[in-house]
Amino acid sequence: MKLLRVGPAGAERPALLDAEGTLRDLSQLVTDVDGTLLADDAAIERVRAAAAAGELPVLDASGLRIGPPVARIGKVVCIGLNYHDHAAETGAEPPAEPVVFFKAADTVVGPDDTVLVPRGSVKTDWEVELAIVIGHTARYVESHEAALACVAGYAVAHDVSEREFQIERGGTWDKGKNCETFNPLGPWLVTSDEVPDPQALGLRLWVNGELKQDGSTADQIFPVAEVVRYVSQFMTLYPGDVINTGTPAGVAMGQPEPKPYLRAGDVVELEIDGLGRQRQELKGA
Amino acid sequence: MKLLRVGPAGAERPALLDAEGTLRDLSQLVTDVDGTLLADDAAIERVRAAAAAGELPVLDASGLRIGPPVARIGKVVCIGLNYHDHAAETGAEPPAEPVVFFKAADTVVGPDDTVLVPRGSVKTDWEVELAIVIGHTARYVESHEAALACVAGYAVAHDVSEREFQIERGGTWDKGKNCETFNPLGPWLVTSDEVPDPQALGLRLWVNGELKQDGSTADQIFPVAEVVRYVSQFMTLYPGDVINTGTPAGVAMGQPEPKPYLRAGDVVELEIDGLGRQRQELKGA
Repeated sequence: MKLLRVGPAGAERPALLDAEGTLRDLSQLVTDVDGTLLADDAAIERVRAAAAAGELPVLDASGLRIGPPVARIGKVVCIGLNYHDHAAETGAEPPAEPVVFFKAADTVVGPDDTVLVPRGSVKTDWEVELAIVIGHTARYVESHEAALACVAGYAVAHDVSEREFQIERGGTWDKGKNCETFNPLGPWLVTSDEVPDPQALGLRLWVNGELKQDGSTADQIFPVAEVVRYVSQFMTLYPGDVINTGTPAGVAMGQPEPKPYLRAGDVVELEIDGLGRQRQELKGA
Repeated sequence: MKLLRVGPAGAERPALLDAEGTLRDLSQLVTDVDGTLLADDAAIERVRAAAAAGELPVLDASGLRIGPPVARIGKVVCIGLNYHDHAAETGAEPPAEPVVFFKAADTVVGPDDTVLVPRGSVKTDWEVELAIVIGHTARYVESHEAALACVAGYAVAHDVSEREFQIERGGTWDKGKNCETFNPLGPWLVTSDEVPDPQALGLRLWVNGELKQDGSTADQIFPVAEVVRYVSQFMTLYPGDVINTGTPAGVAMGQPEPKPYLRAGDVVELEIDGLGRQRQELKGA
C-alpha cells in the first residue's frame, strides 16, 4: 500500500493511493498515519481490506498539498557515508561500522514543500536517501530477519545538509543537519510488502533539471536489515521513527571547485524506484 | 513556579509545588505541562494567579511517582564540553564555538526512574546538567536578551553517556547518548522568573553517596543566553524543546584508571541549587 497524508501543513488527513493511482480518503477508517497505526497490524489489515474492496471514498487530488507520510515522528536517525561511491567522493574511508547522527523530527516537511537555505549558508547540499519507517519496536534485535519485521515501509527522504555547519563549525555533524525544512519526506509510505528487495532500488536526484545523483541501494555498505539491527543495539527504535539510510555519490561537496551548492531559486527533484518523486524550490530563510 | 507531572509513566497529571512545598493539582486548569502551555503566557498567568490565591486542590504526594516535568518534548539539544574544568579533564581544548549534539526525546524519563546500563556497556558515565526548557520559538535570535525571553524555565538533567559508544564506535557522539532511559529530567520545571541568574547555580552529583561532581554554572564557557542565541542560528527551537547545557568536571571518564563507570546496582543522586534533586538506581537493560 501507498499511505500518505494530504492537506495544509499541520492539518493533513490520512489517504491512500490505490493500485490504479486514485487517491482515496482514509479519514473515516484511521485517525492518522502515525506510529500508533503502523504498530497496529489489525488496523493496517482493515485498511488493506477496505482498499481491496474498493470501499474507500475517492479524494479530489487537484491542488492538494502532500504532507510528510508519517505524523508525530519520534526521531529521525541518519546513517552517514553508507554508500561506497559517496564515501569515496568525500575522501572518507568506508566506515567499519555505521556512522549515526540525528535530524530533529521538526525538520520533516512534505515532499514538495519549500526548502529554506539557512541564513549565512554558503554550502547547502542535497542528498537523496531511502528512508525506513519503523512499525514495531526494535530493541536489541539479533537477526536481520527480526530487523526487517520491525520495518513498516519505505519512503523517499531528502537529507538536506549544510556542509560548513556540519564540518567546519566544531562538534558533531548535527549542526548542519537540523536547519528548518531540511528533511522533505514522501510522497508516500510504501509498505514493506511492496518493496521485496530494499537493496535493489535506484535513487536519482536532479538540480535545475540536471541529473546529479544516480545510484542504487545495492551500493549500500550497511543494508537496511543491518542498519536496523545495529542501531537497535544503541537505542530503541519506536513505531513512527524514521531512519535515513545514507546517500549515493553526486552531492555538491563531492564536485570540483567551484562546488555547485544550492541557492534560493534552485529546484531539486528526487525519486526512488517505486517510492515516488519529490520536487522542492529553495528560498532564503 | 515549580511545575511538575506526577503519576504512572505515560499517564502523568500536571501539578505545581507551591511556595510552602505542598503539591497542588493542576489538571482542572491545564491539560498538561508541555510546549503548548509554556507558549501560552495567559495560561501561565492563570496558573500563577490560582496558585497565589490558594485555589489549587492539594494532591497527596505519598507514593506518587514524579515524571519528566515536560510532556511531548520535541527535541533535546545538548552542548558538549561547556565547562572549563570538564573540557580540561577530558583533555579537550575549550571549544571555539558550542559543540552541539542530540538526545532523542524518547530517552527522557522521570528524575527518580531506573536508568538502564545498555547491553554490552562497560563505560556508562554520569553528567549532571542544567537543562533549559524553551517556552517561545527561538529562530535566528540576535541578542542575549531576546534569547532569555524564549526560556520558559530550568530543570535538572542527567545526561547519561556511554563513552565507548560515544567515542570509540565511529561517527558522532549520538551513538553513546541515546540509549533507553539516558535522560532523567526534573523533578520540576522552575520558571525563569525564579532563576534570576542561571550562571550562579551550584551543580552536584553523587555515586553511591560519594560526591563526584561539584561545579557551578559560573564555569560555563557559553552561558545560557549565548547557547540559545547560538543554537537558534542553526535550527529553530520550539516551545517544549530542551537544551542540556553541559556538565562540570568529575565524570568517570575524567578519573584515573580504573575509571569508575556505572554498573547495575549503583545509585546516582544529583541536584542543582533551587531546581531540586534526582535519584536513580541503575539496572541492566
